[in-house]
Amino acid sequence: MVNRNLLKEFQKRLGRENVFSEEADRLVYSYDAAVLKPEIPGLVVRPVTSEALSHAVRLCNENGLPLTVRGAGTNLSGGTIPKKGGVVAVTNALNKILEINEEDMYAVVQPGVVTAKFATAVESRGLFYPPDPGSQAVSTLGGNVAENAGGLRGLKYGVTRDYVMGLQFFDVDGELVKTGSRTVKCATGYNLTGLLVGSEGTLGVISEIILKLIPLPVHKRAMMAIFNDISRASETVAAIIAHRIVPATLEFLDNFTIRAVESYSQVGLPVDAAALLLIEVDGHPAQVEEDADKVASLCREMGAAEIRVAKDAAERDKVWEARRSALSALAKMKPTVVLEDATVPRSKIPDMVLAIEEISRRFDLPIGTFGHAGDGNLHPTILTDRRNKEEWKRVEAAIEAIFDKALELGGTLSGEHGIGLAKSCFLEKETSMAAITYSRRIKAALDPKNILNPGKIIGESP
Amino acid sequence: MVNRNLLKEFQKRLGRENVFSEEADRLVYSYDAAVLKPEIPGLVVRPVTSEALSHAVRLCNENGLPLTVRGAGTNLSGGTIPKKGGVVAVTNALNKILEINEEDMYAVVQPGVVTAKFATAVESRGLFYPPDPGSQAVSTLGGNVAENAGGLRGLKYGVTRDYVMGLQFFDVDGELVKTGSRTVKCATGYNLTGLLVGSEGTLGVISEIILKLIPLPVHKRAMMAIFNDISRASETVAAIIAHRIVPATLEFLDNFTIRAVESYSQVGLPVDAAALLLIEVDGHPAQVEEDADKVASLCREMGAAEIRVAKDAAERDKVWEARRSALSALAKMKPTVVLEDATVPRSKIPDMVLAIEEISRRFDLPIGTFGHAGDGNLHPTILTDRRNKEEWKRVEAAIEAIFDKALELGGTLSGEHGIGLAKSCFLEKETSMAAITYSRRIKAALDPKNILNPGKIIGESP
Repeated sequence: MVNRNLLKEFQKRLGRENVFSEEADRLVYSYDAAVLKPEIPGLVVRPVTSEALSHAVRLCNENGLPLTVRGAGTNLSGGTIPKKGGVVAVTNALNKILEINEEDMYAVVQPGVVTAKFATAVESRGLFYPPDPGSQAVSTLGGNVAENAGGLRGLKYGVTRDYVMGLQFFDVDGELVKTGSRTVKCATGYNLTGLLVGSEGTLGVISEIILKLIPLPVHKRAMMAIFNDISRASETVAAIIAHRIVPATLEFLDNFTIRAVESYSQVGLPVDAAALLLIEVDGHPAQVEEDADKVASLCREMGAAEIRVAKDAAERDKVWEARRSALSALAKMKPTVVLEDATVPRSKIPDMVLAIEEISRRFDLPIGTFGHAGDGNLHPTILTDRRNKEEWKRVEAAIEAIFDKALELGGTLSGEHGIGLAKSCFLEKETSMAAITYSRRIKAALDPKNILNPGKIIGESP
Repeated sequence: MVNRNLLKEFQKRLGRENVFSEEADRLVYSYDAAVLKPEIPGLVVRPVTSEALSHAVRLCNENGLPLTVRGAGTNLSGGTIPKKGGVVAVTNALNKILEINEEDMYAVVQPGVVTAKFATAVESRGLFYPPDPGSQAVSTLGGNVAENAGGLRGLKYGVTRDYVMGLQFFDVDGELVKTGSRTVKCATGYNLTGLLVGSEGTLGVISEIILKLIPLPVHKRAMMAIFNDISRASETVAAIIAHRIVPATLEFLDNFTIRAVESYSQVGLPVDAAALLLIEVDGHPAQVEEDADKVASLCREMGAAEIRVAKDAAERDKVWEARRSALSALAKMKPTVVLEDATVPRSKIPDMVLAIEEISRRFDLPIGTFGHAGDGNLHPTILTDRRNKEEWKRVEAAIEAIFDKALELGGTLSGEHGIGLAKSCFLEKETSMAAITYSRRIKAALDPKNILNPGKIIGESP
């Protein structure tokens, strides 16, 4: 709880109806989609204008209160858990699409705009915003930018970072910083845009985002390649890229995940398959046809038992909806799911898949593996029960074993979920202490009182 | 000059043959491709290993000597002029391509690798590194990364920043910082890679670069659209994109530039045309054919007098070579050329072209305009003589007028040349003082003694 005078100050600046101090309200914002200990904030505020957001920043800084800004809180790394209490600012009222410029192919949005709503809005104009994190139906663009969210289309189209042309954000003093441009090229000053994207709210509070748009690909074809041998499936991923085909989407599901998804969504997945590849190619009709044929024959050469091509858009959408339900499907099976995103160079996917199977056996834990195989970005998902202490220890050991293996294979701790709270203690495994020190110097210079989302990514300075 | 003991220390650490203290040697590194006052460094060193480079950083930091690292020095913003003297480190001996990974489509290089050599090396394996700055025949990849160099393919393929997956660099203490990854997705820690790209050597000294590669597009078609009215040409640029066609290259040349290029390279350009668009589309053969047809008919609709399609690769290459010679061609005409790169949203290209013509008349200066119209990135090039003081004053006023107009049209000071020394005094015109303060805090935290390329981008703290 914040003291009464300060509470009044927040009410005065943000409007009484946008300040929440009751425990019930504060509890709602004590956790996010990561499996981590909740922390109850002292106050929750809902700025309804950019100006109100800057007041929140100023009041927190002046009073030494930590400030955690969040959208929908769908991140999987604890990036929005208010580690040190303080104030949580929810951006869902800052939800205006301020501009969609068709001629110059960009849009300007407030941080609280829901990702899928924005995607639909630009698609209705023949434009395309590719980043599509699993939580896109509820996640916000501000959250996506803060976490540098990925999705199913990273292979061909990149991730959130690749679409942020510019930002407006408040520094810790509440001053408005403008960075980037509405031009497709910009080499003006330090790339603060690039630094802020993925910095998880630790370096500034985003108030406006300029997003790049591209022409909407009209022609698509999706197919499912069914394998009776998991290694043949994972080896096919690199084989497709080696033939210089870059599908829009190239997803992998193991048997465990196939069964979970099928039982959840009944779309007719082959529940006896060892693994599936779900592949979509897009582009010019002739290109689509050629690529689809090449991919299908490659899959057959690599040992696929069957190839099913989606007959129409409805069938295609059904498959993608099923794929998108993988996390929900697995989450229904046990009280706790831990979704990891250690990522490897794509040629190492076969090794990683085998390693995850071995880790599952070694620690006696069910692990469903699916994910963006084309990006080398798998989501090994451990099913467990957080309340079982003995089992939880094995879960923690398994997670560390997954990280170690990914790094051994030349990979990285996080492909798209960020470091947040969940992985900050592992950061030194991947980067040098010099990199952490360098990052901490940036943080200390820009937020000397450690107000902005403290404890995330780089942990606490020693 | 540095003192004798320190000179000996450099010789001991870097090898006597790699340390140059004679005035003649130091003069060579007192300037770059920008039209700015030269500054003579006290010492020039040529590290032949990463370790030697780290020694240079350490010695400079310990002795409070400014350090300016440079590749070929082809930048156009004074980014490599050793503003405060000190030491210039030349990276041309760090020129190894360490790895080209075909399967995972990336390469690892040292900073001194020449851009065009690298591009050729990856193309021989069916891969593509798109960034192609005008100086690619001599420029280095390290310099390209430091300046975030652009080129002719920005519209479809992006700029240097879009291809840097990871870096190794030395911080000012000479400690090795590793950032980014060999994976296509990476959300691990602060995006130091993104921060370093374009920071012009002010935040660290790059020793290794991981570059993303993509499949080489095999099919291409180039054409020239000849206009008798400059506005019809500039309006056609936005019309092409509005029809959702994204050419690989979409270049504009005004009559002044056409004449200069033709007289320089005799490739048969139409010297009486008011303006030319040079357009290349690439991709699947069917896509190429369709796009080429659409572009040609659009150009005709918009009033092109003639369309010439390149008959074969040789003819295509000839046109691009001519285009690439534009700066050299203009440079032959007067003792001094000032090549600007103020950039606007592409729909504002017609306004910008007219504004440049008006500025040319107002200040009575010949200005040739050409550039990457598809990116909104024009290069108005002022022909002058630096020694004529009265004229130089008009040149400075014309440059400022160009910047003001670009910003008025929603553009930016620099599309691809960087801010360097040349534009740092104009930075506040575009960004807020808050953005400059934010950037200066980063610089001060990472380089407290202001050793690394002082005076660039953010100028001197007040």
